[in-house]
This record gives sequence, structure tokens and C-alpha cells, in this order.
Amino acid sequence: MPEQKENSFADRLAQAIEKKGTPCIVGLDPRFRDIPHSLIEECRSTHGETLEGIARTLFLFNKNVIDLVAPLVPAVKPQIAFYEQYGPAGLQAYWDTITYAREQGLLVIADVKRNDIDSTVAAYSQAYLGEVPFWNDTKQPLFNADAVTVNPYLGTDGIKPFLTDCSAFGKGIFILVKTSNPSGREFQNLLTADGIPLYLHVARKCREWGQHLLGKSGFSSVGAVVGATFPEEAASIRRELPHAFLLVPGFGFQGGKADDLTAFFSEGRGALVNSSRGIIHSYTQEPFKSSYGEKHYQKAVVEALEKMIEQVHRVVTPQSTTSV
Amino acid sequence: MPEQKENSFADRLAQAIEKKGTPCIVGLDPRFRDIPHSLIEECRSTHGETLEGIARTLFLFNKNVIDLVAPLVPAVKPQIAFYEQYGPAGLQAYWDTITYAREQGLLVIADVKRNDIDSTVAAYSQAYLGEVPFWNDTKQPLFNADAVTVNPYLGTDGIKPFLTDCSAFGKGIFILVKTSNPSGREFQNLLTADGIPLYLHVARKCREWGQHLLGKSGFSSVGAVVGATFPEEAASIRRELPHAFLLVPGFGFQGGKADDLTAFFSEGRGALVNSSRGIIHSYTQEPFKSSYGEKHYQKAVVEALEKMIEQVHRVVTPQSTTSV
Repeated sequence: MPEQKENSFADRLAQAIEKKGTPCIVGLDPRFRDIPHSLIEECRSTHGETLEGIARTLFLFNKNVIDLVAPLVPAVKPQIAFYEQYGPAGLQAYWDTITYAREQGLLVIADVKRNDIDSTVAAYSQAYLGEVPFWNDTKQPLFNADAVTVNPYLGTDGIKPFLTDCSAFGKGIFILVKTSNPSGREFQNLLTADGIPLYLHVARKCREWGQHLLGKSGFSSVGAVVGATFPEEAASIRRELPHAFLLVPGFGFQGGKADDLTAFFSEGRGALVNSSRGIIHSYTQEPFKSSYGEKHYQKAVVEALEKMIEQVHRVVTPQSTTSV
Repeated sequence: MPEQKENSFADRLAQAIEKKGTPCIVGLDPRFRDIPHSLIEECRSTHGETLEGIARTLFLFNKNVIDLVAPLVPAVKPQIAFYEQYGPAGLQAYWDTITYAREQGLLVIADVKRNDIDSTVAAYSQAYLGEVPFWNDTKQPLFNADAVTVNPYLGTDGIKPFLTDCSAFGKGIFILVKTSNPSGREFQNLLTADGIPLYLHVARKCREWGQHLLGKSGFSSVGAVVGATFPEEAASIRRELPHAFLLVPGFGFQGGKADDLTAFFSEGRGALVNSSRGIIHSYTQEPFKSSYGEKHYQKAVVEALEKMIEQVHRVVTPQSTTSV
């Protein structure tokens, strides 16, 4: 098994949470039709009504959002589907977003939910975390994110190449254990013959996969995705994975509530709470729509994020030894 | 539930299999370092030692392979990881590969194994099968593949947007039920409390998801991925899914054998057998390496494919009413 280097992802994440003083993160899932018109017009005039014009709109919007949130949160989580749907130009915007966010001191969790058989996963892993085969038998980094989300359905074969790159490059992965969507229960909550649901089997494997990637912080660079909408499941997953960071999507827009968050944390540590639409497109939703509208979208983004942070901190004080 | 249009994917696939007289398909998973040097040099001279140079090498190679295999097989299955790892230029090569293969009369199964929550899956589905949001409230097709592979871990929410596009655009999906890799069994073969393994639960859901997408051929546009390496599991999946096309990877290079293939078929129909490395990079493997080498890679590709078709037909005669 790979050994963890000095500067592990888990330790970098723990430090970033401590520095920013919050476990809240922002999902960069931009929807073209919800982006303020002023930005759309700017890109229309420079790139025309092309796929590239859309992709540059996404990046310009992200750049503005990143400038606003970088002082406040430890990490961002760009969801690749919203970029990939615009083809090569969209993927360029994704790459530029990762690069720009890292330049602003943010950790970047590439929400790609990839998985496949081993030789194929190796290609994904080297693209997002490691280095890809280049000319003249050299290698070079590509997207260079800090971590990726990974689907577990194919078992250990589909995880190992990621573990190797996590170790070699100080990167991390978050494995889907219990997703935030309602129908996640169809398979994830199936009770197995030994009396425990499938998601706990996946959690146990995460522990095994992450045991050689423990950092000085006490946390592993192998984390788990657990939806904010399922606090009961979170409590049992937390028990199985005392050393894992839980990445918690589904807060806000999808219905996850602050009061339910304590179960995801371990003495106030070890979880990241993500909100996407509720922050970046807050100006399309009340009360921000009436107060600011898209003209003052930047104020809406900051206020929505500050409100989220306040809600979460009412329940969980980061780095404290007990949760309130 | 969406209704199926006249020209369903399942019917187009059934027709293509009949026309070409084989259920064998070719996986377009090009590895840069295994591509013949003459092609690499050609792209180095036109694009330099850049990511674009690599991406154009992949496409040029695919183009040659497609020209060779288009008269022989009904479909190709390009695995996106091998393109995506080269960033935007790689994704352009993927797009160009899909377009070129369709122009040559091939059906294209985009092997992307995507999945996510509903709003995110909608973005993937419109990119690969449907139409993406474009300027001035219009929509336009992007990759425009005939079908995609999909991961089932998130349940119905993560499938529905694909079903809608399958119905609207005559496209198809293949859901991962039992994958070809050894560790697939870790979760997929877990016995559930009601006495059946997880993969059969997934198969049952596939049947439910596919019931409104039945074509005139008697097959549904919702198929299942079942690895050639697991014939026993295939027999039980076949029983659960009498109307599904089974996409069977893992033949050849991964160890799947022709003798085991009968279980995947239903009276000689309803399955696609895929080989990737064993065909497209056959000139790097014996006996083709010694006979042809990379200088005559085209002869190796054709001979490897003809050999595969012969092996498969010894066991399954397509469109016959019984398997031999």
C-alpha cells in the first residue's frame, strides 16, 4: 500500500479549515441561464454566440465568485457536468476554474464522480490528481485538483489508482457512500444478509482504503460523501469512519438543515458542508432576489454565504473539541 | 413515463446487428504510447509536442481504425477516460471520433459511466444524448452519441433524465449491473437480506426503467453492462432482463472466453460483445506483433477483429433462433 507523504491532502484540508475558521465550502455549479446578463453580454461581445462564448461566461462568473468567497472558505467544489456539457470549451473553463481557485489559495475538490476498471481509472486519476503520459516518455500534470469525488460501484480495482496518486502527489478522494438525492436509498440502503445496509459496507471499505493515508491531523486523505439530507445514516457512517473527512452536499437548496449537521462531525471536526446553487445563484432566489437581484449579485453571494456559515456555526464550531 | 419514438435505439441496434451479421463491437480506447510511430510523427509535425498533438494522434488513429472496422461491426464504444485525460483537446478528439464513426454508419456507445443527482445528470444527458442550453433560449445537440453507459449507485433520480432523452431523441443507455473487473464482486455480489445479490436488484430496476422504452424489435433502449468474465451471473441477469441488450466488455484482453458467451444471449440475440485493446492495439500483442508489427497495424486490426468474430460466431450465430 502507498505511504502518505508529509504534505497530505487531509492535513492541508485540516489546516485550511482552521485558517478560514469554517467547514463550509462553495459548489461552483454555474447554470448559463442563471448567470447575470452583464457577464453574458460581455462574453457575447468578445466570443460571439458560440460554445466558447458560453464557456467563457461560466469562467468569468466563477472568477468573480471565487474572488468573493476565497477569503471566507477553505475549498470550492466545481461540478464538472455543468462544464462538460459545453464540450472542449467547457472543459477548458473547468480547468481554468480549478487553476484560478488554487491561485487564490483555495483547495479544489473536483466533483467528477468518476469510476471504471483499473486501467481506465488510472487515466482519470492521472488527469485529475497526478500526471498524464506526455511526449518523449515524459509526464505532466493536467487539471491538478486537490481531490476528486469517486463512485464505489466497481470496488477496490476502481479505487487503487487514485490511492497511488493520492500518496504520490498529496491528493485526496471522497467516495460516494450515501448520496443526498431521495432515490439514493434504492440501492444504498438495501439491507445485506449480514444485517447492515450497503452504504455501511461501502463505508467499511473506505476505512480500509484510507488506512494508509492518515495524516498528522489524524484524518485520512480518503473521505466519504454523505448527503446532508440523511443525518441518521450519517451517525452510523461517522462511527465506521472516525478518521475520514465527510463531504456533505445537499445543504440548503436540496433540503439539508443546519440542526441535523452535528451527526456528520466528530467533536466539531472532520466534515465539509457544501452549498452550490444556494450561494452562487442566490440572487435568483428569495430573499436575495428582492434585496439585490442580479445587478448586485455579488452582494447576494456574500450574504448568502455568510448566512450559511452563521447557520452552520450555530450548530458546529470548527476546531472546538465539542459540538454545541 | 416517456414513450418510445418510432426510431428507437434498440431497433436501430437490432437492425445494425442484422445488417453487419455480428454482435461484436470494437472499443476505441487508444493509448498514446501504443499508437504506431508513423501517426505520432505525422501529428508531431503538424501540431508540435502539445496536448493538441497527442489528441490529434488519438483521432487520426481512430479514424484509420474506424475505416477498417466500419464494414464489419454494428457499433464502436469509445471510452472517454483515454481522451479526457488530455483535457479540452482530448475531449475534442472524443467528439470528432463520435462524429466520424456515425458518419461511417456506425452506432456509437459513449462509454462514460456517468451518474449524479437529477439536475446534474440532466446536464450529462443533454450533452451526450440530447441538446444543451444554448444562446437566446435555444438548444443544440453536442456529442450526439447513440447511447451512453451509466452507473446505477444513485438510483432512479440519476437515471430519469437519461430516460427522457432516450425517448425524445431515440437514444439508449447501458447501466452497469455486473462489471468485468475482479473486485466488482465486493459490492455487486453482496447478498441482500432477501436472498439475492445486489447486481440482481440493479437488474430488476433496469427492467423497470426500460419497460416504457421497448422497440418493435422486442428489445428495450435500456440495456445492461455485464462483464464477459462472469458467465454465471450473466445467466441470472439474462433471466431478469429478457428484453434488454447486454453490453459485454472484458472479452479477450480481460479474460472473457467465447465458450462462456451463450449465457449472455437470448436465443442468439440481445447482446453486444466488446473488445478494445485486443483489436485496436493488436499489433503490440502476439501473434500479431511478430506477423505484422506496428508498420502493418491495419492488417493486425482487421485480422484480430475477424478472429474475434469467428470465435464468437462459433458459439453464437446472430439472429438465429437458437445458440449453437
